Amino acid sequence: MRELEERIRREALAVLPDILRVDMFLNHMIDPVLLEGMGEEFYRLFAPLCGRVTKILTVEASGIAIACATARRFGVPVLFAKKGLSNKTLDKETYTSVIHSYTKDVTTHVSVARRFLGADDRVLIIDDFLANGAAARGLMDLVDQAGAQLLGIGVAIEKGFQRGGQDLRAQNIWVESLAVIAQLQPLLFREPS
Amino acid sequence: MRELEERIRREALAVLPDILRVDMFLNHMIDPVLLEGMGEEFYRLFAPLCGRVTKILTVEASGIAIACATARRFGVPVLFAKKGLSNKTLDKETYTSVIHSYTKDVTTHVSVARRFLGADDRVLIIDDFLANGAAARGLMDLVDQAGAQLLGIGVAIEKGFQRGGQDLRAQNIWVESLAVIAQLQPLLFREPS
Repeated sequence: MRELEERIRREALAVLPDILRVDMFLNHMIDPVLLEGMGEEFYRLFAPLCGRVTKILTVEASGIAIACATARRFGVPVLFAKKGLSNKTLDKETYTSVIHSYTKDVTTHVSVARRFLGADDRVLIIDDFLANGAAARGLMDLVDQAGAQLLGIGVAIEKGFQRGGQDLRAQNIWVESLAVIAQLQPLLFREPS
Repeated sequence: MRELEERIRREALAVLPDILRVDMFLNHMIDPVLLEGMGEEFYRLFAPLCGRVTKILTVEASGIAIACATARRFGVPVLFAKKGLSNKTLDKETYTSVIHSYTKDVTTHVSVARRFLGADDRVLIIDDFLANGAAARGLMDLVDQAGAQLLGIGVAIEKGFQRGGQDLRAQNIWVESLAVIAQLQPLLFREPS
């Protein structure tokens, strides 16, 4: 997606060895025009899923905005996995998995309420980054636990120099990325596969 | 806002003494149609701010979706305050405040990067709940620290039986709520003031 690549090129900060900071338009401040464009592009890429997908699954916090922009076009709800252990405002009955963030070097529990994800659901996962694939695998685990069907995974930015995307595609999972970073410094993009 | 009141009436769960669970359409699963309606309604209520507001400020995670739906209409960026202390993907230079959540009984640091909020900014705060006003005051503190101007506060659901809304309005802060709960059980609404 050209607009996203241009924003990354112009504004993002590479923090070696492998962090790309996009807090100026995606992860802290959010540009609503870019956001809408990203929702539209996911809708275009995953067009065959229209009418089949029943839920967009993401994880708080920075996946929520992109998931909502996408869900609006598919006309289905967003379900965002909560981080941390359950609290008073969430169901006791949850599916729970674990995500290790290499970027932040922390391990986080993520969970969704069982009553919001079931065997009838056909799920599109949407998230901001795909690097090692840890977040995607945590969300896929929630989909599995619910007996739901995974239809695809869409990420805004794929770190093509890490293994996540490659491994998921090797499992025949439909993965779409709006921008793929081939290397951070100097910044090089690669065509999405 | 009639649609929001109806959804609360039909689906929300009151957990006494003072918790209202709206995780089925707002705080965990998000209905994109309701979300768009909420963005439209905030735009209508705060119409005089159009062209003046420069940023929508909220706090992760459940404020993000509503803030984005509102920001799209005003054509300005969302800035969402991060919870917890700073991490590798965020600036070191932040404005930081503290929010005590009575619902969850935890105290959380919230922060925004200094370079995203400045003396030129005119800010509309958008959030999901207003109860004691702790979250609103934490965000207002960030606006103050930045030397920015607060134009108003919009919340989806105000717990009218708690003091937050009353106290803020007594300070001549422009507060709009899409639904005001007068009491939880039996559930009663009150006209937004």
